[in-house]
Amino acid sequence: MHAEIIAIGDELTSGQRLDTNSRWLSQQLGDLGIQTARHTTIGDSLSDNVEALQRAVARAEVVVCTGGLGPTLDDLTRQAMADAFQLPLELDQESLDKIVAMFASRNREMPENNRVQAMFPRGSQIVPNPHGSAPGIDLQVAAPQQARTGESPGNVNRSCRVFALPGVPAEMRQMWLETVAPRLELLLGSQLGRLHYHAVKVFGIGESDVEVKLPQLIARQRTPTVGITVSRATITLRVAGRATDAATFQHQIAPTLGEIESALGDLVFGAGDDELEHVVARNLKQQGRTLACVEVGAASWISDWLLKVDEPQCRCFAGGVAFPNRSAAERWLEREPAAESKTITSGCGEMENASETLEDERWTAIARLAAERFGAELALVVGVYPSVKEMECTNGTFDFVFALATSTTVHLERRAMGGHPDVLGPRVAKTGLDIVRRYLANEGLTRNGLANNGQ
Amino acid sequence: MHAEIIAIGDELTSGQRLDTNSRWLSQQLGDLGIQTARHTTIGDSLSDNVEALQRAVARAEVVVCTGGLGPTLDDLTRQAMADAFQLPLELDQESLDKIVAMFASRNREMPENNRVQAMFPRGSQIVPNPHGSAPGIDLQVAAPQQARTGESPGNVNRSCRVFALPGVPAEMRQMWLETVAPRLELLLGSQLGRLHYHAVKVFGIGESDVEVKLPQLIARQRTPTVGITVSRATITLRVAGRATDAATFQHQIAPTLGEIESALGDLVFGAGDDELEHVVARNLKQQGRTLACVEVGAASWISDWLLKVDEPQCRCFAGGVAFPNRSAAERWLEREPAAESKTITSGCGEMENASETLEDERWTAIARLAAERFGAELALVVGVYPSVKEMECTNGTFDFVFALATSTTVHLERRAMGGHPDVLGPRVAKTGLDIVRRYLANEGLTRNGLANNGQ
Repeated sequence: MHAEIIAIGDELTSGQRLDTNSRWLSQQLGDLGIQTARHTTIGDSLSDNVEALQRAVARAEVVVCTGGLGPTLDDLTRQAMADAFQLPLELDQESLDKIVAMFASRNREMPENNRVQAMFPRGSQIVPNPHGSAPGIDLQVAAPQQARTGESPGNVNRSCRVFALPGVPAEMRQMWLETVAPRLELLLGSQLGRLHYHAVKVFGIGESDVEVKLPQLIARQRTPTVGITVSRATITLRVAGRATDAATFQHQIAPTLGEIESALGDLVFGAGDDELEHVVARNLKQQGRTLACVEVGAASWISDWLLKVDEPQCRCFAGGVAFPNRSAAERWLEREPAAESKTITSGCGEMENASETLEDERWTAIARLAAERFGAELALVVGVYPSVKEMECTNGTFDFVFALATSTTVHLERRAMGGHPDVLGPRVAKTGLDIVRRYLANEGLTRNGLANNGQ
Repeated sequence: MHAEIIAIGDELTSGQRLDTNSRWLSQQLGDLGIQTARHTTIGDSLSDNVEALQRAVARAEVVVCTGGLGPTLDDLTRQAMADAFQLPLELDQESLDKIVAMFASRNREMPENNRVQAMFPRGSQIVPNPHGSAPGIDLQVAAPQQARTGESPGNVNRSCRVFALPGVPAEMRQMWLETVAPRLELLLGSQLGRLHYHAVKVFGIGESDVEVKLPQLIARQRTPTVGITVSRATITLRVAGRATDAATFQHQIAPTLGEIESALGDLVFGAGDDELEHVVARNLKQQGRTLACVEVGAASWISDWLLKVDEPQCRCFAGGVAFPNRSAAERWLEREPAAESKTITSGCGEMENASETLEDERWTAIARLAAERFGAELALVVGVYPSVKEMECTNGTFDFVFALATSTTVHLERRAMGGHPDVLGPRVAKTGLDIVRRYLANEGLTRNGLANNGQ
């Protein structure tokens, strides 16, 4: 079964707005096991809309339109469906009543224009829109002929299911999840079971190394299938299979999850939508500990992530400091009379030379000072994030310092890392978070334990 | 003249990747005065590619394809062009030599697969790709007939210019800017002059209020045209006109810029790609001053922006602190023995009640402490950014505090602000930056001066 998506609006074809709906719908269709063959984006032109609809229903079994359901003259999706399939538009009184009531609840009278939003091509089902004035359309149409290549021809009685949803992403998504997806699942029949997913999250290894460690797992014909994606150095292994219910699916995938775990060990940090910051925040909370963070350079990734971990009164993150460069961080230290007197102990082994020792002592002191000033049990120092300009000028690697102050000592290590400017910063920050994760998991850490995980 | 864009790749139709190329190309075509009528996204299927190409050239005068130029079997754009227009693929020796040399410079031998990247449909011009192995294709084809409605029919000899570019955004953009855009400008002829742009950046007023203050400016038929866009509470007025050179364009738009300035006054903060952080950083640098920043709540926007202002050793930003909530910030203050003894002076007028006074005194002390600890002349405190959850639960407004410590005093003000969760945080942060901008511009600020700018 193939789908096509039609996104409608001059603001999309002109480039004024980025279309994110088509991608989201493709992913959702994929989750139902329906492959999307084409996205078409057209402006607010009736003839383009009619043509695009007719061609799409001739090729696909499911067509999803977004946009063009508003009350103004340039919202043409209803009319285009009526014209394309030669169906009259009819008023749905219930929809009209709802639109009138929605305006009334906002102390406004419904403008006459909005009446058109209660008009549907004859034979449509309605897709309710809980948070907007435009209901969606669900219409089964007879499709002239199968035009896709490579499929059995002569399927004369084929039909196509056309859905029209608003362009506002929040409304569209809710309507999809609440109404369209369940109707498509019904259409697909449930004998095979629906697609279930389980994501395994991995950090500290490259994509190609995962493939080397798990060669047979990524094979296309495998059941369950395992897909691999990478987002800013975090690897997601997505295990997918059809099952009648979640428990059956979990049973099916247990051997696969076992293989992954035994091959990757503690490179696996979480599941589902977990990111490293969620795992770190969860573990801190469970252990009743708090973390402060000092980031040096052109970014403050870790503080950002921990501030956003969605607990308004997050009690695990004590706060973060960001310095634009090392000397600013060192001046902070110098202005602290208390810091000077601290005994400096580094968790490191031998030092290369005196100036590196001195530098490491200062990083160590910065970590200690942060723990103290933020009243945190743990303080992580990460630096120095290069600026975009520095990354673009240097194709090579940069040296990074990671220092974790605990109640008893400061563990410090250096790593050389490089990569694409879009990825290097997050990868460095995640390396820092991963050090905290491993410390919390092991209640301590050794230099060897960390070094074994080098990329 | 109309254009269509074809984006190619299974990773796009499946939703694995978001297509940003089509939007970017639409904007670029728009800058040349060419309107994009359609985006089509198809997977790696030869028949779909051939069909999409044939239909696009029948409707449009310019077709731009991205993707499918790689060396692997699923890269089909070359073959699709050859099939669609019945042209043989021919080897271009110069391109082949370049590909071989590129591999040699990386100490690798060219895999045999890559040879296909030097094959072009007969009659093509080459679009050089300075940073990748896939050159682009530029092909003029005879187009069967004009299928777009509303245009003069019977134009039998019409032709269409087809460009094929790689899908990697950085390569595609460079090839567009260096080769495709100049060729299209040549095609369009230069008698009208090319389109020039000037952007005026505005903060502290809503989009509809700009329209009220400048009603005649946004009219569609005006010359030069003025477009208005909003991005996270920053308004851009984009003045556009055709001119033979930049100086003529500046002369043409001078009266329009004058109108904007007299209507909006110092709500205008910059031009071109300026954001508030660029203006603040520039002014700090000019005045030899430094700024520290304390952000409280679920984000650290201002520190992020100032860290990224692209000067690796930015000497204007002394550093930033982020606290997850007010009590964390207050504990920071309490742990500072020095802070307690400071005399607290607020720049505010009368206080509503005692607890607010106390709270304001603490905000004031936090601003002072930040200036001292970071060794900065100025310190800005902004809080409390609500979390996404808090914003979603409350549809109303939140109270925010802005405190700016200078060498002589601390100015403090409160504002109630609300809005969409995606916009509220940046708007609050920009309000803080704007307070710094106005202070630097005026070498001082009064409570009234700020209050007049309330939204």
